[in-house]
Amino acid sequence: MKINAPRGTTDILPQDAKKWQYVEGKIKEVCNRYNYGEIRTPVFEHTELFQRSVGDSTDIVQKEMYEFKDRGGRSLTLRPEGTASVARAFVQNKLFGLANQPVKLFYFMQMFRYERPQHGRMRQLNQFGVEVLGSADPAVDAEVIDLAMTCYKELGLSSIKLVINSLGDQASRQAYRDALVNHFTPHVEELCSDCQARLQQNPLRVLDCKTDHEHEAMKTAPSILDYLNDESRQYFEQVKENLSNMGITYEVDPNLVRGLDYYNHTAFEIMSEAEGFGAITTLLGGGRYNGLIEELGGPNTPGIGFGMGLERLLLALEAENKEIPVAETLDSYLVTMGSEAVKEGIKIVHELRQHGIQIDKDYQQRSVKAQFKAADRLQSKYVLVLGETELEKQVINVKDMQSGDQEEVALNELITYMKTKLQGGSTHA
Amino acid sequence: MKINAPRGTTDILPQDAKKWQYVEGKIKEVCNRYNYGEIRTPVFEHTELFQRSVGDSTDIVQKEMYEFKDRGGRSLTLRPEGTASVARAFVQNKLFGLANQPVKLFYFMQMFRYERPQHGRMRQLNQFGVEVLGSADPAVDAEVIDLAMTCYKELGLSSIKLVINSLGDQASRQAYRDALVNHFTPHVEELCSDCQARLQQNPLRVLDCKTDHEHEAMKTAPSILDYLNDESRQYFEQVKENLSNMGITYEVDPNLVRGLDYYNHTAFEIMSEAEGFGAITTLLGGGRYNGLIEELGGPNTPGIGFGMGLERLLLALEAENKEIPVAETLDSYLVTMGSEAVKEGIKIVHELRQHGIQIDKDYQQRSVKAQFKAADRLQSKYVLVLGETELEKQVINVKDMQSGDQEEVALNELITYMKTKLQGGSTHA
Repeated sequence: MKINAPRGTTDILPQDAKKWQYVEGKIKEVCNRYNYGEIRTPVFEHTELFQRSVGDSTDIVQKEMYEFKDRGGRSLTLRPEGTASVARAFVQNKLFGLANQPVKLFYFMQMFRYERPQHGRMRQLNQFGVEVLGSADPAVDAEVIDLAMTCYKELGLSSIKLVINSLGDQASRQAYRDALVNHFTPHVEELCSDCQARLQQNPLRVLDCKTDHEHEAMKTAPSILDYLNDESRQYFEQVKENLSNMGITYEVDPNLVRGLDYYNHTAFEIMSEAEGFGAITTLLGGGRYNGLIEELGGPNTPGIGFGMGLERLLLALEAENKEIPVAETLDSYLVTMGSEAVKEGIKIVHELRQHGIQIDKDYQQRSVKAQFKAADRLQSKYVLVLGETELEKQVINVKDMQSGDQEEVALNELITYMKTKLQGGSTHA
Repeated sequence: MKINAPRGTTDILPQDAKKWQYVEGKIKEVCNRYNYGEIRTPVFEHTELFQRSVGDSTDIVQKEMYEFKDRGGRSLTLRPEGTASVARAFVQNKLFGLANQPVKLFYFMQMFRYERPQHGRMRQLNQFGVEVLGSADPAVDAEVIDLAMTCYKELGLSSIKLVINSLGDQASRQAYRDALVNHFTPHVEELCSDCQARLQQNPLRVLDCKTDHEHEAMKTAPSILDYLNDESRQYFEQVKENLSNMGITYEVDPNLVRGLDYYNHTAFEIMSEAEGFGAITTLLGGGRYNGLIEELGGPNTPGIGFGMGLERLLLALEAENKEIPVAETLDSYLVTMGSEAVKEGIKIVHELRQHGIQIDKDYQQRSVKAQFKAADRLQSKYVLVLGETELEKQVINVKDMQSGDQEEVALNELITYMKTKLQGGSTHA
């Protein structure tokens, strides 16, 4: 009987893996340029971490977490997002004590959310993200957004839109919260049951509701921007000024509230505007979370970060018809004739590889003709032919598959010969 | 209150992540040279997959799996090893239908085993592995081992030992199994309770027992090599011949049986012999598994592979005092004086980064002196100084931190200037 991968998960096969390698390599290169260092955290965390940081009342914690007990009875959860794990690692490893502040981190993580699988929404998904901990400078907000935009730009995405908002500090948020409760309470009966609960637990999330999106009260809801205190307003102004300074275009959307408990001040999303990209257009979401490190037992430390969906990034590139440049060719392939050549061939292939040369051979006892076919399918640049005649003369026949040229090369000069040929080849490429 | 990472898991922080990046990069480069393609599978699988492939009676399945039910009631398990997942993916994605056979795959995966954590044994661990599916050529066995040895060699490990064995085909294994039962049954009362169960379920595993290791009956146990039928013996001879042909030294250990159900024919391990490496010396284990694909619902397909522990690889490199070469320097750092320079600085840093130049700046409102100190700590090769005087003249001061030389560079020539400087720098490196 066949066993398939669990629902909502998928395999990345070699042809696609090359695309992933390319995208990840490009992003890592950008991170290096911005002086961000990589962090890797465990796939699972104590469940309490997400309850306390993401928030008990969020959809993620209430409905979407892969939560389980280990054999010691601990409640563990496969991480649904990256910020909580990185913040936990920052506190546990005392990174607040490092001389270089802020600590600028990036990560590539699989995330796990038990949602209804659909196009661009998997139960196991891949995210790239950054977190900057230890600075409350609005220039950091701009840097983080700039880094994201640079990644998209250098990968070739052009139809994207940056949307920003400010949730203000604690006091602004509280004032706005009260205003929302006052505004929606007269309509509470007309709202969906989720929103009725949200109005109690976290009224900001009512603005996120997909069911009540068209309700009249939504359109007349107060704007957070009218409830920012002076400090919060000034902070937001500086973020916007820094973005403009860098030539980054943005839109302000006062309804952008992000669903997680830990956010304050700057919130942002980047969407794809490519035609035919589908219903879920958000490529990236992030924001500031100045209280989170303290909440997790660390010293008072400001923080900001984002998570970028990589499956959606690949879909967006596809929607914009951007080809990801991946090599499909092999440098060389060995064709052998006769059992002595087979034996000698194993040695030759081994030695070429020891000297950095990419080469493959047949492992199916194929005929010479079939071996040539295999070399063809692998788009091998060179084919090395070894038969009994060659063996006797201690030579090998090297065929350049593009030009058709053939040369007889002494076996003891093969490594040097191939190195020269392939260096020449890559210079032309 | 502080929340720590779950027991047996750890964070990889930026300084260490650089080592991981180096090791992974080197291994990927070797895989490319051997023409192996990357595969990525989900972190969890249906529990049944491991029960059926690794084997119901193994320690892994019985004691060490992170098994849990998802919100839909499915029994899922965090993968404890890589072969089962890759074999499942091979069947599900019909890779047996590809024109290029065998299918040569490599992976980097986190594995999860609920064991007692100790030095070199984590509950979440990282493995590199390869699987070759679709060829029963003993040259493949040698290639796979060669690839592993090449990875170790190129990373600088020298005190390693390759141990190989043959478990033979199904018939040989059955004959040996019967011989073991006959041999141990008279001593069954003297063996540990685990071994008593093993003698029923899988007598080969008795040979693996750490408790009964010193028992007299262990020393007089029959050798698998005396029970190989002609075909199996011949296959093993060819594997050994191929290894010798490549100049790879090995030891044959008839007690090397590997703990998993799916193995047959070639089994191998690579151990560290570095002094002070500790009790757990196995760096890598692998073997042939010719029946596994059929067992998982695919066509009859031979296979072979290995899993290499990466935490242990890093420990072995440390035990041999091999430094991993990682860059600790930054290309450039901007120091600003005055609020106008701060503002202009954000723009300059943005633009340099857009042109591929690595640069960082202050986000802590530090004094000029403290900014220079930060640049020092980051070992910045160049420091760019921008004050009001420079801004007025539309220039910037570039200081080469190694030579101490300073140059005044026009702002509109800065990108070109830095590119030239840094290219020169990397040529010398």
